[in-house]
Amino acid sequence: MPSSFTFSLLATDGAARLGEFHTPHGSVQTPAFMPVGTQGSVKAMRHRDLEEAGAQIILGNTYHLYLRPGDRLIARRGGLHRFIGWPHPILTDSGGYQVFSLAERRKITEEGAEFRSHLDGSLHLLTPEGATDIQARLGSDIAMVLDECLAFPATHDDAVRSMERSVRWAGRCRARMTQIRGGAAGEAGATNPGQAQFGIVQGGIFQDLRDRSAAATIEIGFEGYAIGGLSVGEPLDLMYMVVAETARRLPDAQPRYLMGTGTPEDLVECVARGIDMFDCVLPTRNARNGQLFTSEGRLNIKNARYAEDEGPVDPACGCYTCRTHSRAYLRHLYLAGEMAAGALNTLHNLSFYLDTMRRIRDAISLRTFDTFRQEFLRSVSRLSLDS
Amino acid sequence: MPSSFTFSLLATDGAARLGEFHTPHGSVQTPAFMPVGTQGSVKAMRHRDLEEAGAQIILGNTYHLYLRPGDRLIARRGGLHRFIGWPHPILTDSGGYQVFSLAERRKITEEGAEFRSHLDGSLHLLTPEGATDIQARLGSDIAMVLDECLAFPATHDDAVRSMERSVRWAGRCRARMTQIRGGAAGEAGATNPGQAQFGIVQGGIFQDLRDRSAAATIEIGFEGYAIGGLSVGEPLDLMYMVVAETARRLPDAQPRYLMGTGTPEDLVECVARGIDMFDCVLPTRNARNGQLFTSEGRLNIKNARYAEDEGPVDPACGCYTCRTHSRAYLRHLYLAGEMAAGALNTLHNLSFYLDTMRRIRDAISLRTFDTFRQEFLRSVSRLSLDS
Repeated sequence: MPSSFTFSLLATDGAARLGEFHTPHGSVQTPAFMPVGTQGSVKAMRHRDLEEAGAQIILGNTYHLYLRPGDRLIARRGGLHRFIGWPHPILTDSGGYQVFSLAERRKITEEGAEFRSHLDGSLHLLTPEGATDIQARLGSDIAMVLDECLAFPATHDDAVRSMERSVRWAGRCRARMTQIRGGAAGEAGATNPGQAQFGIVQGGIFQDLRDRSAAATIEIGFEGYAIGGLSVGEPLDLMYMVVAETARRLPDAQPRYLMGTGTPEDLVECVARGIDMFDCVLPTRNARNGQLFTSEGRLNIKNARYAEDEGPVDPACGCYTCRTHSRAYLRHLYLAGEMAAGALNTLHNLSFYLDTMRRIRDAISLRTFDTFRQEFLRSVSRLSLDS
Repeated sequence: MPSSFTFSLLATDGAARLGEFHTPHGSVQTPAFMPVGTQGSVKAMRHRDLEEAGAQIILGNTYHLYLRPGDRLIARRGGLHRFIGWPHPILTDSGGYQVFSLAERRKITEEGAEFRSHLDGSLHLLTPEGATDIQARLGSDIAMVLDECLAFPATHDDAVRSMERSVRWAGRCRARMTQIRGGAAGEAGATNPGQAQFGIVQGGIFQDLRDRSAAATIEIGFEGYAIGGLSVGEPLDLMYMVVAETARRLPDAQPRYLMGTGTPEDLVECVARGIDMFDCVLPTRNARNGQLFTSEGRLNIKNARYAEDEGPVDPACGCYTCRTHSRAYLRHLYLAGEMAAGALNTLHNLSFYLDTMRRIRDAISLRTFDTFRQEFLRSVSRLSLDS
């Protein structure tokens, strides 16, 4: 059974693209931002808060869900959508990035990544086939291939070796997916027959390697393509250049996903370079630390200047937090350590991100994206409001 | 300017009373349960969650708000309702209980309670007049007198001395309130001209002292009367007996508030003994610890038996948590330490408490309270569902 995933490119404005993709759990308009729901929950949010903020798709982390509560338990409960009660699209990563960043005593071989759980020290082996099976059990709408995550900085030689291994692993992931689609779904315990699979272009900051990786990944053939291994410490200009040059080598007729990025400015700049999908912990993590994104720049709600500030976080925002509460109260909640601080701040930051995506889509549709981009960057990229 | 607080007794069924009181921020149907919003936020809740669960009034803790962000800051921001964005009624306690239970190096004299802040060790003196002024600045709809909190167990002699001091303090609180109403509101920085003030009956477990305290407190004269100093470790039967005997000595035409109680069973049992108002941290605190109240008894969501339980927390409950999520998912969220666990569990527990109050009111109105009470106790008071 083939994936039921389809993508429609609806309009372009320069390199910026307006599109829509369809999954077994509904459609997603692109450019899209995916809130990160690591353990089956976007931190401090309830699902209806996400819907209200405008989230059409969320991301789940395979590494975390595999370790707890376990992909087999989730499969027995009917898959991730049903287990967590989120009826809309879900993308899962492959687990690779977390193995590299969280797990203990990891050892990478051609076969896969051996690691010890950060929860209990238990030993695990994550192979390309295993990562594909786990995601089939989770039943996400979009599964990602297992790739090797290259540290920054890396030499060209290391980047070559890593990129080539990622390509081989991508081939193994695709082969396993083909088996599952061809009848091994029951054997794998797959819960979403219409699951799509995206390849990931690697190659670090070396454009020649990015080009080779893109060509080889497209040659394998996936429902969509991601750009991985950026936002890992390289200069912003370099990231933007790699994004632009890599995106243009990806097929027009399929979605392009920039993994793990970024700031509001990054979203606009990378849409301008042809990206359709984003995910990042920035809006949720920063919210919990009191940093709020607004149409006039960032502000840190801890700052003493907000102690008696009656205004909303962002006068241009229509979210529940901005409609209901003052900066003074939000500062009080934060300093008092109230859980409501995390919830209210996260709701605002996600609303800001998702509203930005709506405005981006509107601008592309009206062919005014370049004007939007210039105005957005001028207002949002100010120095912090705190100073 | 007199308080605009009024109370209407609408129906009785045995000693149980159906009523309604009116405040400058709206009306409250009694018997009522007040969720505890210690620092201007009911923990893990947003205000709209409280409204959805059916909360008509919340409680704020004067001790906490006085120390942070400060009653004068709140007064400058227009009072507590406006500062926190909650337009409905608020009751504030006097701060006395927290001084006794939280503050460091407290010293009680006839003048008041001297203590050091648990936040920064700073030295403070809370007098009856000060507690009245602070609450006037907060602008709650119902202010409480400052009372001395007697430890349990206590000798009759100690209970006499403490009760008599509480009566003297109640007189000083009322005198200060009369000054404020007579024109010292501006001097005090009062933000809610219609604020009511309740007296508190003390006397420990000694009914002779409760009787004397009730008579003396009624003699001073307040808009309502509370029973304090219970639920502090005394046997349940004794508490119920003191509640019954004390409630019957309070004026029919005014509301009766049992402070700091209790379990769902306590609410029903004390309504049966003539109580109109309750507050307790139990539903919110226990929710954060994974203990959930249901129509069939309590359950601890951590329990392994719920790992693959697809059912809702309480099949009889219509709250968002029960409509949307399984016990299996809630257990996962709890074990994974997700903030959503606290939010979802709290929403359920408060919905259960507030729904219980609705059912109590319906039953009194239909004069079927005794039947309701027996059925409720039979189903809710089971041994834990976990076992």
